[in-house]
Amino acid sequence: MLEKLDLSKKVSKEEYNRQMEVLGERLGKAQRMARDAKRPIIIVFEGWRGARRSALINEMMQQMDARGFNVYSSVRLRGVMQEQPFFGAFWKRLPALGHIAVYHRSWYYLKNANELADKEDNTKYPAVSFEHINNFEKMLTDDNYLVLKFFLHLSPEQQKKNIAKNAKTLGKAWRDLNPAIDESEDYDKFLPHYEKMLEATDTVNAPWHLIADDDPRSARLEVFTKIADAIEKAVQMSAEPAADKRTAATYDVLSKIDANKELTKEEYKEKLDKYQKKLTQLQIEMFKAQIPVVIGFEGWDAAGKGGAIRRLTAALDPLGFHVHPIAAPNVVEKQFHYQWRFWTKLPQPGNIAIFDRTWYGRVMVERIEGFAKPQEWQRAYDEIKDMEAQWSEHGIAIAKFWLQIDKEEQLRRFNDRQNDPNKQWKITDEDWRNRDKWDAYEAAVNEMLVRTDTSYAPWTVVEGNNKYYARLKVLKTVIDLFERKLAEKQQ
Amino acid sequence: MLEKLDLSKKVSKEEYNRQMEVLGERLGKAQRMARDAKRPIIIVFEGWRGARRSALINEMMQQMDARGFNVYSSVRLRGVMQEQPFFGAFWKRLPALGHIAVYHRSWYYLKNANELADKEDNTKYPAVSFEHINNFEKMLTDDNYLVLKFFLHLSPEQQKKNIAKNAKTLGKAWRDLNPAIDESEDYDKFLPHYEKMLEATDTVNAPWHLIADDDPRSARLEVFTKIADAIEKAVQMSAEPAADKRTAATYDVLSKIDANKELTKEEYKEKLDKYQKKLTQLQIEMFKAQIPVVIGFEGWDAAGKGGAIRRLTAALDPLGFHVHPIAAPNVVEKQFHYQWRFWTKLPQPGNIAIFDRTWYGRVMVERIEGFAKPQEWQRAYDEIKDMEAQWSEHGIAIAKFWLQIDKEEQLRRFNDRQNDPNKQWKITDEDWRNRDKWDAYEAAVNEMLVRTDTSYAPWTVVEGNNKYYARLKVLKTVIDLFERKLAEKQQ
Repeated sequence: MLEKLDLSKKVSKEEYNRQMEVLGERLGKAQRMARDAKRPIIIVFEGWRGARRSALINEMMQQMDARGFNVYSSVRLRGVMQEQPFFGAFWKRLPALGHIAVYHRSWYYLKNANELADKEDNTKYPAVSFEHINNFEKMLTDDNYLVLKFFLHLSPEQQKKNIAKNAKTLGKAWRDLNPAIDESEDYDKFLPHYEKMLEATDTVNAPWHLIADDDPRSARLEVFTKIADAIEKAVQMSAEPAADKRTAATYDVLSKIDANKELTKEEYKEKLDKYQKKLTQLQIEMFKAQIPVVIGFEGWDAAGKGGAIRRLTAALDPLGFHVHPIAAPNVVEKQFHYQWRFWTKLPQPGNIAIFDRTWYGRVMVERIEGFAKPQEWQRAYDEIKDMEAQWSEHGIAIAKFWLQIDKEEQLRRFNDRQNDPNKQWKITDEDWRNRDKWDAYEAAVNEMLVRTDTSYAPWTVVEGNNKYYARLKVLKTVIDLFERKLAEKQQ
Repeated sequence: MLEKLDLSKKVSKEEYNRQMEVLGERLGKAQRMARDAKRPIIIVFEGWRGARRSALINEMMQQMDARGFNVYSSVRLRGVMQEQPFFGAFWKRLPALGHIAVYHRSWYYLKNANELADKEDNTKYPAVSFEHINNFEKMLTDDNYLVLKFFLHLSPEQQKKNIAKNAKTLGKAWRDLNPAIDESEDYDKFLPHYEKMLEATDTVNAPWHLIADDDPRSARLEVFTKIADAIEKAVQMSAEPAADKRTAATYDVLSKIDANKELTKEEYKEKLDKYQKKLTQLQIEMFKAQIPVVIGFEGWDAAGKGGAIRRLTAALDPLGFHVHPIAAPNVVEKQFHYQWRFWTKLPQPGNIAIFDRTWYGRVMVERIEGFAKPQEWQRAYDEIKDMEAQWSEHGIAIAKFWLQIDKEEQLRRFNDRQNDPNKQWKITDEDWRNRDKWDAYEAAVNEMLVRTDTSYAPWTVVEGNNKYYARLKVLKTVIDLFERKLAEKQQ
């Protein structure tokens, strides 16, 4: 792809200034249009060392409003990459609705460095597959993000010149502070690698723009024009893609579950004590092994999620776990992709994140209540599986519980709450409204349990009519997970 | 203080369970009351190693709702303390309105560790003065935060027993993971140190509660009762303190400034180029020296803040600076103390944070428009000085600019904007309304410039009728600051 670029284009200073007078206004206006249309934008600058990324970005900043405009560099992110799944750092820096995030080197740079840096250096860079990259970008563009990717191309001669000039004007200090790979010693080795990357990630939804950067003025005019064009077009074309045609599949999991399991209070007390002591020990070992844990709880209203979570956390040191109650997204969370609030709550190494309701709200309440459009919740199954796969590949242990009670048991518990003054705050009109939609929820739960049950993030359906039984099953499942992960780590 | 505690109190398991049945409900209810009343709460647990902090906190969590309830430990914060001013980590973890933050060891622990840990270990802990601690807590309680501090006291015999028991049941791993100071080898050396700390920080607004922890059941009942009492009382007594009586002082700074300074376009162009080249170099040196920088811009509407900032940033590498435009606090920022949004935007070492409008909004727009009550903006002068002092002590270089134009010049610029279709978006009705309040703003600016001009964070008043002159003065002031800080660092 790169050899087709005409690197000989040149623009005079006068011509550049003349064009920038118009283009600068257009850029500022495009930013305001995107803000009004609430379109978030990610602009990625990759390319050779010596390409004039910083000067280009700075010129763009001169034309644009600093509000909602952020510049990041993957060179600076290197230190925080290892403590989270690859895209965690980028989720945390996701632009909000109407905002712009500019990457001076991005996920592509980190992948390249992992594959191309010197042996002693490349372990500092995390690995990532083209598939995860394409999925990440697709998920964003599907959600109305605009993803613009530029590769600044240099001839080997120009690259040598630029690097020499930087060394002269900025001094050795700059070189020390900017540890990016220097390809100029062996240009031809790197070229096919970059070509392959461009090919593998040149997608319909997030295509690459190849820019001849031997003449930086011509490069800037081209980049700014493409940015203004893309934003103007995106804002005008904000029409929604149609939902896929879909044959309603019928899944049947819950009806085969008998939610009644027997357990006496005495058996419960004895085993609870035993399991909790075991968990206290295992938490310490998991911390020592630095294995992060994600435990998600879903289930019918009044199925006993809160009680099960309390029996679990009672055994844990409060410094090593955090319970995240998940309700409808708040005003900030609504500014982002639905996965954002979960990526930003991932546990530190050795810590446990417990979610009281989870990302599966996308395919349950958001589906049923129409908060997500059909095409949105339909693609969410794959999106969620990819998210959990990334977490798992990073070493996060994942457990997901569905607490199952039958409809009569729910009614009994609702009435109990209603009649006990100390528990009335626990039950709301919404609970009763949800109950009226039992059948719709049941269909959604069935589909979720079938389509998102994976080896790396399996569902555990917990028979919940007997609370004692349910709590012990949760504890035992977590114990088994911890023991399995510790054994894997020791191998 | 500690010797007065009766360490022999004992509560039986039956009595404990009986009392907890009532107390547990009360705690949960108190949390809901605080949430409804939007009172944020910080609960600090300090005390000897071996005190049953974790078990106590866990028991409290069993009674309370996980929503808006967060537990932190300063033992785990150690790694992030050095990269920011001491209280930065605590500002970032400030509870929002109606939320609860629990500290399993807090700022007191870090101060003690800095002073008492072994020589090779204590450099890992940052230093802080009692004065800054008291100011921090006062600022919060003044702003309706409830700060509850508990010191869990143990006899030397009980401490030895508890530590031995932990070692036995939790194993060596736990010890490795929990690097807190072990005072049990030399109890009498630590006792007077803790006494001194308790005395120096036992304030009316945030008093210490000393708790006998030899019997943990009795300790828990006492702590939970005090927490429930304090919240119930605080919610009932939410009456505002009266504003201080205040003699309106008249300050006079601006009237002595002649905003007209001559500078030709040719002189400007020549010097601008020279200054910007210099700044490019200095930014690299500041990064190498890892000195963080905060630059704040205030000034009349249309005084040229944006233009001055652009001439400054044009010389800087975009990876090393960030412009923070400050408008009215958004819905999230309103959930916190007014300083929160500035503490959370402090620059990384070697980076530059530029604020387009600043924390001085508290004593200008919030004062004039009544968004801050008189007692709030009146105490803000000292609060802001303490904040800037902490930043400066941490090594942050600070510059603050007031861009001064006279009233006629503002009118000319407003009309220019109004009449230019490309600039109309820059001027709003609010600008005209603010202009009508010129005299009130002038009085507020005068007071601000006099009362917050310090050696560590001085104001620079910039004569702004001539934009060229103003921009160069800003650049030159920043250059001088950088050179001075670099020289200081080299000494």
